[in-house]
Amino acid sequence: MNLGQVHMNGGDGETSYANNSFLQEKVISLTKSIREEAITSLFSETLPRSIAIADLGCSCGPNTLSVLSEIIIFVEKFCQELNCSSTEYKIFFNDLSGNDFNSVFKSLDNFKVKLLDEIIKTEMGPCYFFGVPGSFYGRIFPGRSLDFVHSSYSLHWLSKVPEGLDNKGHIYISNTSPSNVVKAYYKQFQKDLSIFLKCRAEELVEGGRMVLTIMGRRNNDPCDTEYLCDDWEVLATALNDMVLQGFIKEDQVNNFNIPHYYPSPYEVELEVLNEGSFVINRIELFETDLSASSDKSDFDSESKMSRLFLCDKIGYNFARCMRAFVEPLLVSHFGEAIIEDIFNRYLEILIDQKPKERKNYVNVTISLTRKG
Amino acid sequence: MNLGQVHMNGGDGETSYANNSFLQEKVISLTKSIREEAITSLFSETLPRSIAIADLGCSCGPNTLSVLSEIIIFVEKFCQELNCSSTEYKIFFNDLSGNDFNSVFKSLDNFKVKLLDEIIKTEMGPCYFFGVPGSFYGRIFPGRSLDFVHSSYSLHWLSKVPEGLDNKGHIYISNTSPSNVVKAYYKQFQKDLSIFLKCRAEELVEGGRMVLTIMGRRNNDPCDTEYLCDDWEVLATALNDMVLQGFIKEDQVNNFNIPHYYPSPYEVELEVLNEGSFVINRIELFETDLSASSDKSDFDSESKMSRLFLCDKIGYNFARCMRAFVEPLLVSHFGEAIIEDIFNRYLEILIDQKPKERKNYVNVTISLTRKG
Repeated sequence: MNLGQVHMNGGDGETSYANNSFLQEKVISLTKSIREEAITSLFSETLPRSIAIADLGCSCGPNTLSVLSEIIIFVEKFCQELNCSSTEYKIFFNDLSGNDFNSVFKSLDNFKVKLLDEIIKTEMGPCYFFGVPGSFYGRIFPGRSLDFVHSSYSLHWLSKVPEGLDNKGHIYISNTSPSNVVKAYYKQFQKDLSIFLKCRAEELVEGGRMVLTIMGRRNNDPCDTEYLCDDWEVLATALNDMVLQGFIKEDQVNNFNIPHYYPSPYEVELEVLNEGSFVINRIELFETDLSASSDKSDFDSESKMSRLFLCDKIGYNFARCMRAFVEPLLVSHFGEAIIEDIFNRYLEILIDQKPKERKNYVNVTISLTRKG
Repeated sequence: MNLGQVHMNGGDGETSYANNSFLQEKVISLTKSIREEAITSLFSETLPRSIAIADLGCSCGPNTLSVLSEIIIFVEKFCQELNCSSTEYKIFFNDLSGNDFNSVFKSLDNFKVKLLDEIIKTEMGPCYFFGVPGSFYGRIFPGRSLDFVHSSYSLHWLSKVPEGLDNKGHIYISNTSPSNVVKAYYKQFQKDLSIFLKCRAEELVEGGRMVLTIMGRRNNDPCDTEYLCDDWEVLATALNDMVLQGFIKEDQVNNFNIPHYYPSPYEVELEVLNEGSFVINRIELFETDLSASSDKSDFDSESKMSRLFLCDKIGYNFARCMRAFVEPLLVSHFGEAIIEDIFNRYLEILIDQKPKERKNYVNVTISLTRKG
């Protein structure tokens, strides 16, 4: 699997990430106070005249800019209260090189106008914007060049599918996966998070802050990834059906595994402590539910998505979110031609399942300070 | 005219800028020694351990990366000869937000591999890449953050079409344009270059270097823009024909003017001296001809392009170059639907003209140092 293909669906169409990132939007809203706490302590200690902020795994769409506008507004208000001079902003958008940076850049002019005219209504410090293509599991910034690193809903993407998986019939850790599958996923997560922390430790200034939100799980049993395991199992079922009917070769499905890991707070904490460059200010676990995320009432009432919407609002929301981020991965592995078929089957299985009490999403947010 | 639409044709198709930028390629090759001289003096004086290089108006396609690979290789060899430690590179690609940054970013992985494996074959300093969307007729970088600024074939683009032009029947300065048209174009050029220099003076470190290549003209008569005026006149003729035949409204053509200016070396020098922040190390005028630029022998022999190719190789090359950069401007003003018609007519007129002795392109290259 070529992870160079890992990116969200670009553009602004029905299946685009930009129009299907309401889960991420909720999470960003829920973690606002943690970012504000980090920024407050950063400014209280150092009162920087210039702040370099990186959003790692920025993707494209409204969330990319909403976090940054929130941070800038907060800093401006903070500086006004302290009567200190305007801050200069260096804003870095990072994602893999397959990300739709064009759409991020095209929205910047409007973003700047809105920020000035509608929200702040006063002069603000100069703002410089940079796109930074590359994997955050490697160095992407010069040493000690960042003050604040933010990453939301990106670090559950592993750098690659763990090696040597024997996970026949499944595409992720399942309740029946052999223990070495679970171990291989965990090992890859440990390796990746450790590299991530090491790189950021080199790129952040002393006292720099980092707030990371990762899709995670509540307890230490790696198979208890709430209902997410179930949903990957639904996709696996769709793929296995297509193998039985001769549309996909069995080997193709056997070689396809989702490069995600949903860690527990303890697993995240352990890697931070092992790496050793950061102080943990806060680590929190919180839940998001998707039930109130969509009011797409004008959706074509005959479509599969709509039937799913009527019988299971959370399932519908999840299906849209999932397609926006998993489609490029599926296209890269199975080709463009059978994508609609895969998602139609996936939806049919979801619709056939009785709407059940779905558990909420679990998220782990950690706020860190680069040690001196 | 919305200059937000000013960008080269993206992607890698037949009419893309990436495949039709051989003129720019020639110019880049001809100015190599001037860049090397600037880099040598920069390194001899300061021996920076880290160098921040910006390519302004980078566009997309092979030229974008070829200048940078040339500079990096030169610096690496220079450092090897002096036995100094590896340099860290910060590479900034700038263009307007409509530029196809996605295609630049996607080619970076390959670029890095090639640079290491095929050219240098030894370890080199770390390289960080940034996309910087925005007009260079404004601040786009933090103060004193750049060591070397390069811009090739971008500064003849004005920030906007001069105001109050009464240039009926033409789309650029022509031999019959009234003198206030010429004055309006020159005034806009002065204003734009002055702002450009002022912004770069703030962004460059003291002693920082800047090498600019601008499509220009030999003498101080603004109508003597070599044969370029003629070619804009051919496009104007095509548009006027379409007005006569009712395909375009007359007002639309009257409101369409090319936002270019091709300055003489003296005009460039004058603005640099007036602005006052830079020392002029070198200013050169040189010619490029397009006659040897294409061997597209497999081109469909029945097509208009091919007929033009057979009767006038330079015209063919120019037509391809011109379409790659002027198409987005025409689309934004006249709409997508009539673009093929415009270029077909343009080519018919070129084919009907007897192949004539075309003059070469004239270019002005200036090498500057930021004063202390």
